[in-house]
Amino acid sequence: MNLIVDVGNTLIKMAVFDNGKIISYRKIPNAEFSKSVKSIFSEYFLIQNAIVSNVGGIGHEEIAMLCVFCKVHVLSHTSKTPFKNSYATPQTLGVDRIALATAAFYHNPKGNTLVIDAGTCVTYDAINDYGEYLGGAISPGIGMRYKAMHEHTSKLPLLKKKGIMDFIGNTTETSMHSGVINGICNEIDGTIEQYRSRFVDLTVILTGGDAQFLSKRLKNTIFAHSKFLLLGLYHLLEYNKR
Amino acid sequence: MNLIVDVGNTLIKMAVFDNGKIISYRKIPNAEFSKSVKSIFSEYFLIQNAIVSNVGGIGHEEIAMLCVFCKVHVLSHTSKTPFKNSYATPQTLGVDRIALATAAFYHNPKGNTLVIDAGTCVTYDAINDYGEYLGGAISPGIGMRYKAMHEHTSKLPLLKKKGIMDFIGNTTETSMHSGVINGICNEIDGTIEQYRSRFVDLTVILTGGDAQFLSKRLKNTIFAHSKFLLLGLYHLLEYNKR
Repeated sequence: MNLIVDVGNTLIKMAVFDNGKIISYRKIPNAEFSKSVKSIFSEYFLIQNAIVSNVGGIGHEEIAMLCVFCKVHVLSHTSKTPFKNSYATPQTLGVDRIALATAAFYHNPKGNTLVIDAGTCVTYDAINDYGEYLGGAISPGIGMRYKAMHEHTSKLPLLKKKGIMDFIGNTTETSMHSGVINGICNEIDGTIEQYRSRFVDLTVILTGGDAQFLSKRLKNTIFAHSKFLLLGLYHLLEYNKR
Repeated sequence: MNLIVDVGNTLIKMAVFDNGKIISYRKIPNAEFSKSVKSIFSEYFLIQNAIVSNVGGIGHEEIAMLCVFCKVHVLSHTSKTPFKNSYATPQTLGVDRIALATAAFYHNPKGNTLVIDAGTCVTYDAINDYGEYLGGAISPGIGMRYKAMHEHTSKLPLLKKKGIMDFIGNTTETSMHSGVINGICNEIDGTIEQYRSRFVDLTVILTGGDAQFLSKRLKNTIFAHSKFLLLGLYHLLEYNKR
């Protein structure tokens, strides 16, 4: 059994894999990391290896605490990857994007793949049919767009994401929902078109916390997979064990 | 002569109009309002009327101070507008958007017009060929997107806007530039397409601090006019004087 830990900018996702399948999954606030680790190991004492992807907020102490329970691989730019990394500055490539590229590589090893992860940020990552990671883009996620408009203006309220009835909003609130939701859909659809015009037979995968919300609002056909990053981490753990 | 004052979320823009033409223009930080008013009136003592659009940061005291020099119209939802306002909640319609709709109405009185103001936020405002204001959308502006990604993540740097060489970024910085600049262009182009498919013979006007930067990066043909909002305020002042 393997434990997969994805520390994002706002939450930690943890999954227990048994023979390549998720048998337990939880999403917790950063502060509850130690408590959750203890509870997982009391239930799944067959876990022998863990991988940690940390773009956010846990420190050395929490990782040291995990090392008491099993062998831990902390993902970094020095980890081995199954794909060829053509990023100009591989030492600055976020570990979350390494995991997404890995998942893309195993999902579609001989094709062109674009992975879009809609979480705190929206990340776009491309891997071509030679198994070469090319890079992509990072833009603000849905929740961040709402927060930013509230924090950086004096009169706009803080709203929660909500589907829109029409792209023409006729109140401040429906205007903001249109700006965020219709805006991000146009951004994603337009970006997919750019990739499609460069790469033949492109597979597009949408993942992250807002994947389900967005997938039914996009023009383009995409493959939504909410735990794609965890799958990439699982493959990276197995690959680095060898 | 008229003085037009546009207090935005980050800066104040002031223009002196003589016979419908701008003869003086300045852009200042909010704190320098009183100093600038004195300097303008010492030079242009023929100013008899002023209009103030305030979505941001000046208070009653500053406006009272301006009233010492001339007659002042403070734009609000109770001001008269030349267009029919079909906003469901007219009392919440930002005064900046009232000004943009007015400018659109005078620019293209018998046509369908979409005004896009790319400033602190990007606002979209539609006025149809019956002179009816319909509403639109509000999304985060370029600078706000960069700031939000830095403030709401632990590892992303604060960048300044920069044109991109390619939509596939191969460093953290070029990925962020692609996410913001290519992202906002796809958002705007996609939104223009949605309006074009609903309104025939649509005129699209792009204004605001980032209008020039964006106009050459958009697929759609647009009419860029950096002082469109001030022009709307000028028309509103004349209209409310009657």
